[in-house]
Amino acid sequence: MTEYCSVEMGELTWEEFADHVDGSVVFVPVGSTEQHGPHLPLNVDTVIATEFSKRAAQRVDGLVAPPLPYGFKSQAGSGGGADFTGTTNLDGETLRRLFGDVVGDLVADGATNIVAFNGHYENEYFLREAVDLHLEEGDGEFIIASWWDLLSPDVRDDLFSEVPGGFPGWATEHAGVVETALMMQFRPELVREDRVVDDGPDRAPPYVVKPARDDQIASTGAYYKATYATPEIGERVVDDVLDTLVEGIAHEWGDVVPE
Amino acid sequence: MTEYCSVEMGELTWEEFADHVDGSVVFVPVGSTEQHGPHLPLNVDTVIATEFSKRAAQRVDGLVAPPLPYGFKSQAGSGGGADFTGTTNLDGETLRRLFGDVVGDLVADGATNIVAFNGHYENEYFLREAVDLHLEEGDGEFIIASWWDLLSPDVRDDLFSEVPGGFPGWATEHAGVVETALMMQFRPELVREDRVVDDGPDRAPPYVVKPARDDQIASTGAYYKATYATPEIGERVVDDVLDTLVEGIAHEWGDVVPE
Amino acid sequence: MTEYCSVEMGELTWEEFADHVDGSVVFVPVGSTEQHGPHLPLNVDTVIATEFSKRAAQRVDGLVAPPLPYGFKSQAGSGGGADFTGTTNLDGETLRRLFGDVVGDLVADGATNIVAFNGHYENEYFLREAVDLHLEEGDGEFIIASWWDLLSPDVRDDLFSEVPGGFPGWATEHAGVVETALMMQFRPELVREDRVVDDGPDRAPPYVVKPARDDQIASTGAYYKATYATPEIGERVVDDVLDTLVEGIAHEWGDVVPE
Amino acid sequence: MTEYCSVEMGELTWEEFADHVDGSVVFVPVGSTEQHGPHLPLNVDTVIATEFSKRAAQRVDGLVAPPLPYGFKSQAGSGGGADFTGTTNLDGETLRRLFGDVVGDLVADGATNIVAFNGHYENEYFLREAVDLHLEEGDGEFIIASWWDLLSPDVRDDLFSEVPGGFPGWATEHAGVVETALMMQFRPELVREDRVVDDGPDRAPPYVVKPARDDQIASTGAYYKATYATPEIGERVVDDVLDTLVEGIAHEWGDVVPE
Amino acid sequence: MTEYCSVEMGELTWEEFADHVDGSVVFVPVGSTEQHGPHLPLNVDTVIATEFSKRAAQRVDGLVAPPLPYGFKSQAGSGGGADFTGTTNLDGETLRRLFGDVVGDLVADGATNIVAFNGHYENEYFLREAVDLHLEEGDGEFIIASWWDLLSPDVRDDLFSEVPGGFPGWATEHAGVVETALMMQFRPELVREDRVVDDGPDRAPPYVVKPARDDQIASTGAYYKATYATPEIGERVVDDVLDTLVEGIAHEWGDVVPE
Amino acid sequence: MTEYCSVEMGELTWEEFADHVDGSVVFVPVGSTEQHGPHLPLNVDTVIATEFSKRAAQRVDGLVAPPLPYGFKSQAGSGGGADFTGTTNLDGETLRRLFGDVVGDLVADGATNIVAFNGHYENEYFLREAVDLHLEEGDGEFIIASWWDLLSPDVRDDLFSEVPGGFPGWATEHAGVVETALMMQFRPELVREDRVVDDGPDRAPPYVVKPARDDQIASTGAYYKATYATPEIGERVVDDVLDTLVEGIAHEWGDVVPE
Repeated sequence: MTEYCSVEMGELTWEEFADHVDGSVVFVPVGSTEQHGPHLPLNVDTVIATEFSKRAAQRVDGLVAPPLPYGFKSQAGSGGGADFTGTTNLDGETLRRLFGDVVGDLVADGATNIVAFNGHYENEYFLREAVDLHLEEGDGEFIIASWWDLLSPDVRDDLFSEVPGGFPGWATEHAGVVETALMMQFRPELVREDRVVDDGPDRAPPYVVKPARDDQIASTGAYYKATYATPEIGERVVDDVLDTLVEGIAHEWGDVVPE
Repeated sequence: MTEYCSVEMGELTWEEFADHVDGSVVFVPVGSTEQHGPHLPLNVDTVIATEFSKRAAQRVDGLVAPPLPYGFKSQAGSGGGADFTGTTNLDGETLRRLFGDVVGDLVADGATNIVAFNGHYENEYFLREAVDLHLEEGDGEFIIASWWDLLSPDVRDDLFSEVPGGFPGWATEHAGVVETALMMQFRPELVREDRVVDDGPDRAPPYVVKPARDDQIASTGAYYKATYATPEIGERVVDDVLDTLVEGIAHEWGDVVPE
Repeated sequence: MTEYCSVEMGELTWEEFADHVDGSVVFVPVGSTEQHGPHLPLNVDTVIATEFSKRAAQRVDGLVAPPLPYGFKSQAGSGGGADFTGTTNLDGETLRRLFGDVVGDLVADGATNIVAFNGHYENEYFLREAVDLHLEEGDGEFIIASWWDLLSPDVRDDLFSEVPGGFPGWATEHAGVVETALMMQFRPELVREDRVVDDGPDRAPPYVVKPARDDQIASTGAYYKATYATPEIGERVVDDVLDTLVEGIAHEWGDVVPE
Repeated sequence: MTEYCSVEMGELTWEEFADHVDGSVVFVPVGSTEQHGPHLPLNVDTVIATEFSKRAAQRVDGLVAPPLPYGFKSQAGSGGGADFTGTTNLDGETLRRLFGDVVGDLVADGATNIVAFNGHYENEYFLREAVDLHLEEGDGEFIIASWWDLLSPDVRDDLFSEVPGGFPGWATEHAGVVETALMMQFRPELVREDRVVDDGPDRAPPYVVKPARDDQIASTGAYYKATYATPEIGERVVDDVLDTLVEGIAHEWGDVVPE
Repeated sequence: MTEYCSVEMGELTWEEFADHVDGSVVFVPVGSTEQHGPHLPLNVDTVIATEFSKRAAQRVDGLVAPPLPYGFKSQAGSGGGADFTGTTNLDGETLRRLFGDVVGDLVADGATNIVAFNGHYENEYFLREAVDLHLEEGDGEFIIASWWDLLSPDVRDDLFSEVPGGFPGWATEHAGVVETALMMQFRPELVREDRVVDDGPDRAPPYVVKPARDDQIASTGAYYKATYATPEIGERVVDDVLDTLVEGIAHEWGDVVPE
Repeated sequence: MTEYCSVEMGELTWEEFADHVDGSVVFVPVGSTEQHGPHLPLNVDTVIATEFSKRAAQRVDGLVAPPLPYGFKSQAGSGGGADFTGTTNLDGETLRRLFGDVVGDLVADGATNIVAFNGHYENEYFLREAVDLHLEEGDGEFIIASWWDLLSPDVRDDLFSEVPGGFPGWATEHAGVVETALMMQFRPELVREDRVVDDGPDRAPPYVVKPARDDQIASTGAYYKATYATPEIGERVVDDVLDTLVEGIAHEWGDVVPE
């Protein structure tokens, strides 16, 4: 007999899940299928959300629900937009319903503490709306966390101190220093090291134009200086983000997580 | 330099995907998160749909889009229903929108031949509706295939010839002989061999009752004689289903697939 | 003074309905407007669902709500598909809302036991979803029954024993032996006896192709050997289906139906 | 061989419908299931809409699609409201989708001239919206006609000249003089003559109050002086309404209807 | 320090609103952006609904929520229809959701008595539906009032006694005598006095045709004899409508309004 | 005769609008009804969006459509959240539909260049989605601009140089320095100067918690140091934001705006 043990909800039998769900934090990784430059695969946001979720779940004895691999529409200024071949996105209402249905059933299963762990910039408001609509009738407590928000400003500034131009803001750090570094940690075999580029759009106006103009989009799909990425940067980001998240969970839900 | 090669769309860069999508069959695995008895994990339908899709993609030089890991509501008579802890389902309209958005973007990316490969009995009509609504305005050709429908009746009857009671119909072959055998092939480490059971509901009326009655639901979640499952049965099913699918694709779309 | 008496809810005054609805089974026939070959009219599914419902209501002292005469989209493999002139269908979400609104109001009126009696193959999953969504907040008990599922396997096999090729499965028994025979019982004047044909598609692949291929569709619209239909077959089917249904109702809801 | 002939689309085979639909006016009766006082059945609006449609179709060689037997929510001031047992209504969006789907498929079948013939006061704006949304993308020409609007003011005033209080406005002529008279024409066996009453609400304020107040609702459900109804009034209304409708159709669509 | 005082909710701080909302009638003006002939601006319906609401709020010590400046689709027979440049309308479902969300939040804020004050003929049924759907789960009492319904028949007939042709019915009194007169009262600077016209469609059939025919639409957009409008008519209408409304509010909600 | 002239679309007749819309930029202000501390009214976001829009329209000879006075749900971290009395918000899908319907009709009216001018932080993604869905089928070019994004970083840093703690990020500059200063410019009579406070939440975690915790919400509703606001700051912000916007419009649409 194999006593199978996993933080992945999908790998548990229903009885194992039932035994574990009470008082456990359930993480729902939310990613996307979106271009990430010439050197990173389409699944970057899903991989990053899932890998962070697994590591966090291990630290708080939680569970990770099956990740959502499609996200809201990539925007030209933050991910290149819908016209890149391979970028495959959902309408906002679809993502709202999808996430709402999943958390609704998880709560019905006994989950009381759910973390939406987000890896795709454009998802955030639809996750918030899904939770707000769920809470009109439903129960549960929710944390919605995007990994870039969890990185300490100090660490962030230190990481970017050697990058010419410094930290550009998260909206445009797409397929850039940190995402590339994280993939070097999580799935190094998926980083095409010979194709890492420093690219970016010619122009980043302080408003959104639709349909997008060509000069607002990086033609390679890489929005910042990915050549500065290193596995060491990835490791520091992983550690710092996880620390912030686990501390946050302990602060909010100290009664349900082990010390 | 690593020349990365994968049938998984998510592992390709957007440029690699763009190079490959023209004239390629794109498989979209559609699974579920649903109880599968005491011996199989919650992700059975997703694993089976994904693994079949990858093998089929290898045979027709196609691609596999990121799988949909949540499906339409489990029904009491075919999967135990919503009350099993761990079963986490979508509303029909959510699944319809989700699949519709994904195929809409894939077609916009240049995919002309899409296979919805379904591993969850209850999904089928919502996938059909998604494609029908897409085709009101959109392009592309679609095959919607559920693995059980692809198994040759001869092979099926032969496989069940030694099972007391014979083939019970696919609706109730849930967490039973064939799903267990397929998991022994695809992810043997996820089969809890010491907990394989022969169970089933006490009663299977020829109509649906809602809310479901207890005696229509197998209390363990296993709906048929899983103890008869063997890896050899799994292997025969994999081979036969793939042969049927690949022949079907060649018949329908001979011009776009390699011989 | 006329003491009007009817099983049809629509023919009752509100006071008569109010007197009768408590403790009564309410049948909602769900049909379609769909081609049924050269010999049967477009309303076959509605007629069959309504006539069965009336007879069942008489046997359990129940009521029949106004029938829904439009159903979900005809599928190429089971009813010819949307391209037949005259086939007039609803989107899945429309049917779901329609049936959900009707049962919601019936429950608000005091109906506690509702039978969705279905005459159109493609309707089933949207009726199930309507009831599932209703039950998230609402009350009532529901049976969803399609007439073909209620026919005893023994009787079915006996009826088809003289048909070359035997029973083809219900999906393709469209405008075939049993539907033709039932119309001979229920509305014989609507059967164009001189146009009864034995037809069927050239090919019935074990998957769905969309847009449908011509060789998967019977050009006349008749999918099976309607020339074998007789009024006697119709009579046996009516009797057997009603027996199964009434027994089922008694089993599930013995306390609310008269013995 | 029976040469079956009917104005009812549902009674035609698909081939007969296909032969007839080109250049024919197709009527879609839209009714309701709504209380109509102690003397009239719940299906009054559907019966009236259907019977007018059949007679009009005979005069213009048109066709009648299967009637919609459920309508938008009864309002307290015009039909008693949702609280009457037996009143079974649809949400506005459901009716909009339902009618929109039906006319969409009829137009796809070749219908170019469609009459929504309405028998339920509250339906009108949702039928208009359905047609407006259909016409954003779709084809066809539409008449939306409610029978009361078609009655000539002269005839109307003459009919009410002997009713104390005269014509009260159509909103409150519910289960009153004209509806009762029409049922005496169309389905006399459904009129409970011994229960015809003169009733009405105590108060009819010039605004809507929700939830409705009791004194705004006629407790019997009859809103006006039904005792003044006669079959002769019914006959005059039938003739006048049909004349107005047929003249209107000839005016709008003279090229598609026979003289 | 300024002690700011206003009936306009939008001009209050949240604390001032919180102090005032309990036991106050909250008016929600619902208008449109719709052509109103050559002499009146596009915002007529919104101005009228808002100005009546403010005056009523002053009389009952109530509050006026921010007005909804877009309404349901203008219809050819009552407002010229969608083809007039400048007419900018909402789908019915959008208006239903919009009004439903607003009243839902107002009720959550403590409002118990809400008046939807409507200035656009076509809005009414979608406001009713919004309230009906709100009341399925929610609380509160609602009056839905359109200003033309509040005008006493006696006053109306007196006002029109000197207009050749008399009162034409409210559907076609668009940009006509009363709306022009009201704007002369409420916003005289917006009335282009040199462009006031007497116009109307050539034909007003007793049914709706879609797409609309040209001869059913007044080419100037003015549907009735605006040249008969005077500020004095406007004043009488304002006074009479307000009296009716305030009396109605006192009758329905005497306990919550000051005497 | 008065020759009325206004940048407000609502104040124009349809003919005046028709004359002006071709080649004009149309601004649609999008605000909210949301608490803004003890010193600012609920309509701050709408006032600011509208006033900026009018000034910009004057500079580019454009038009201002009627403002949308309700926005997406206030979030605890950026505006206090739904629990403040007076905050009255829309579901995301409602706002998406509302804005989509408005821009759809404006484009149908001939508007080719539309600026969504946003005054409420939480609206942005639903405006983007509305435009993306519009552009799937529709025409037009769109700028979506939020005033805080248009403020030059240099000016912003200079303005905050004397505020202890400096610039806190826009999410939390709610009812703070800049919004207060803008209201001092646009509607000084609405600023309760005696109630201006320096407040803020006790804690601003780098993730969202739902339901929100009390210590994440400023109890007064003011999120930053409003006491540092001056009319001069307001004036500088107005000038700088307008310069950026008008330059942006000239850059994107130089061909349609006057020099």
